[in-house]
Amino acid sequence: MSHRFPLPPGSMIGVLGGGQLGRMLALAAARLGFDVTILEPEPDSPASRVAARTLEAPYDDREALKTLAATCDVVTFEFENVPAAVVEQLEMLGALAAPGKRALAVAQDRVDEKEFFRGLGIPTADFAAIAGPGDIRAVLARLGGRALLKTRREGYDGKGQTWVEGEADAVAAFARVGKKPAILEARVPFVRELSVIAARSRSGGIACYPVGENRHENGILRTTHAPARVSAATRAEAEAIARQTLEALDYVGVIGVELFELDGGALCVNEFAPRVHNSGHWTLDGCEVDQFEQHVRAVAGWPLGKTEALAEVTMTNLIGVEAKDWKTLAADPSARLWLYGKRTARDGRKMGHVNRLKSFDR
Amino acid sequence: MSHRFPLPPGSMIGVLGGGQLGRMLALAAARLGFDVTILEPEPDSPASRVAARTLEAPYDDREALKTLAATCDVVTFEFENVPAAVVEQLEMLGALAAPGKRALAVAQDRVDEKEFFRGLGIPTADFAAIAGPGDIRAVLARLGGRALLKTRREGYDGKGQTWVEGEADAVAAFARVGKKPAILEARVPFVRELSVIAARSRSGGIACYPVGENRHENGILRTTHAPARVSAATRAEAEAIARQTLEALDYVGVIGVELFELDGGALCVNEFAPRVHNSGHWTLDGCEVDQFEQHVRAVAGWPLGKTEALAEVTMTNLIGVEAKDWKTLAADPSARLWLYGKRTARDGRKMGHVNRLKSFDR
Repeated sequence: MSHRFPLPPGSMIGVLGGGQLGRMLALAAARLGFDVTILEPEPDSPASRVAARTLEAPYDDREALKTLAATCDVVTFEFENVPAAVVEQLEMLGALAAPGKRALAVAQDRVDEKEFFRGLGIPTADFAAIAGPGDIRAVLARLGGRALLKTRREGYDGKGQTWVEGEADAVAAFARVGKKPAILEARVPFVRELSVIAARSRSGGIACYPVGENRHENGILRTTHAPARVSAATRAEAEAIARQTLEALDYVGVIGVELFELDGGALCVNEFAPRVHNSGHWTLDGCEVDQFEQHVRAVAGWPLGKTEALAEVTMTNLIGVEAKDWKTLAADPSARLWLYGKRTARDGRKMGHVNRLKSFDR
Repeated sequence: MSHRFPLPPGSMIGVLGGGQLGRMLALAAARLGFDVTILEPEPDSPASRVAARTLEAPYDDREALKTLAATCDVVTFEFENVPAAVVEQLEMLGALAAPGKRALAVAQDRVDEKEFFRGLGIPTADFAAIAGPGDIRAVLARLGGRALLKTRREGYDGKGQTWVEGEADAVAAFARVGKKPAILEARVPFVRELSVIAARSRSGGIACYPVGENRHENGILRTTHAPARVSAATRAEAEAIARQTLEALDYVGVIGVELFELDGGALCVNEFAPRVHNSGHWTLDGCEVDQFEQHVRAVAGWPLGKTEALAEVTMTNLIGVEAKDWKTLAADPSARLWLYGKRTARDGRKMGHVNRLKSFDR
């Protein structure tokens, strides 16, 4: 397909991944008159049921990628574990992917990601790569004996990561993750977890949403409150980090940057997600242009939209059986309910979320 | 299908009609975790591209209606010209339709509709049914020589209606509409056109959105401004009319009631639409719960949502080639753009709309 920007309404946007993020991207694309093709290996995915077309195939299926490249004016993704090789193939087939493969490659490897931030002078937790059990003792000693062990690649919602204390514990944990290349990260004495959702357009324009304050439970995001009650200096610092990241990656689309706020307000980056982000779901009811429309605008070469918060919002994820409360939530006028259309409520599975608004003047 | 209310997320909602109203209903249904099946004779319809399933068949296709009845937990429609016989067939096949066939039947015949309002004591324009050319002279004399001739059935956006002056003119116009049963309506000396979008839930709860002020051009809605600058008494009167109408029809879903405001603030009903309504599109950006989600909530047996306006909104339809301005509108931060995914911009065709918000405190 030829890629003339801005893409006119009626253009086809490809999305790798058919989960809730793909679903909400498809809804946002429809608002602007775009059509969406989903590539997703699982049948009956949440996004497939609101998309013009679904290719049910593995992400690296050659025929599916050919179809995507031939029929989509731009291809994007809803999660960062798409093999970078897939994006490369798509590009070789003539497709345009956004955000590009550099953002994907950096985000896919926790060591590369931390080195990327370090290279920009952006603080991160102290860390070291673990290639084999022999690396553990020295690194752990440097990090103070207690550290977070994560696989370098894959894993989300706290999967594939565990706190370790002492060498024996760390060696056992390393064995449990299958002796895959890993990273050990020092504990960051943070007072709060924040995130900044930002977007960069094809022409290099950048827009940041107000910083959100996140609470995790068992490694899974529980609530986001936005705008976070942070100082102007902390907000400016968070935005500067997002800005630097977007520019260094020559990024197009929405990014989610997770931050730790230290005592005194200084910030340290945890990680970034090269996609729309759970901690930006508050924008669906709290902003004129939500993160999904913003992402569609960016990848389609449209100008970015307004990011001001219209109200204070608390977003609460509905995890697993919590979505069974839908009757109560449907009857609660203060709850703006989003359900993702997932058929079964497995433990830890994100089934929906609720936004609760509080007007600024109250 | 069994009809247990409230319908749980994952239920299937059938929609007769695949235009922009069906599309926006499908988007709203998806938000709440519902799936949608569209029945629409035209291929590649706007709603089909955001629906889980599309039956491409005439509205009275027996097999399609059987499938709808067998697979949908409730069936609704996006326009009032669905033959009442179709809804009857659906019901005989075990489907549940909302709003029901009484609302549809009344709305489909302009004489029945005016008689319905008259029976409720709600003022309408003076009118009389025209069965043949012989009826014209006496009626026209009574209405003052000048009147609006409309076919009793079908016609929308001013189609099938024309102002006539004198008997010869009226007889010629009657011939032009194919001598179909018609109605002659007296001119109403209105100062403004208003509409009220309201909803009634399965348990009989009623919620009205703030009254909108409408401007038509060539019989097509051009703009809606909401909340309309009307007195509290006029708003109360508009709501009372909507309430009476909903209750008299034992209605479930969203209704659009078009009103004329006379000098002094008194109201007179023009007509009602048994569906979501163009003059309610401002709610998409102006209310927490828009008219599409409200309709889905009502037909699914959920409680109704909040109808307060969060801001003043001016909605402007994009008609025909006006949608070619999408680049300018996409770049205008004050314009909340909705495009319907229609492939060709025919004259008079509604291609999208724009909502412009103005905060109340400005």
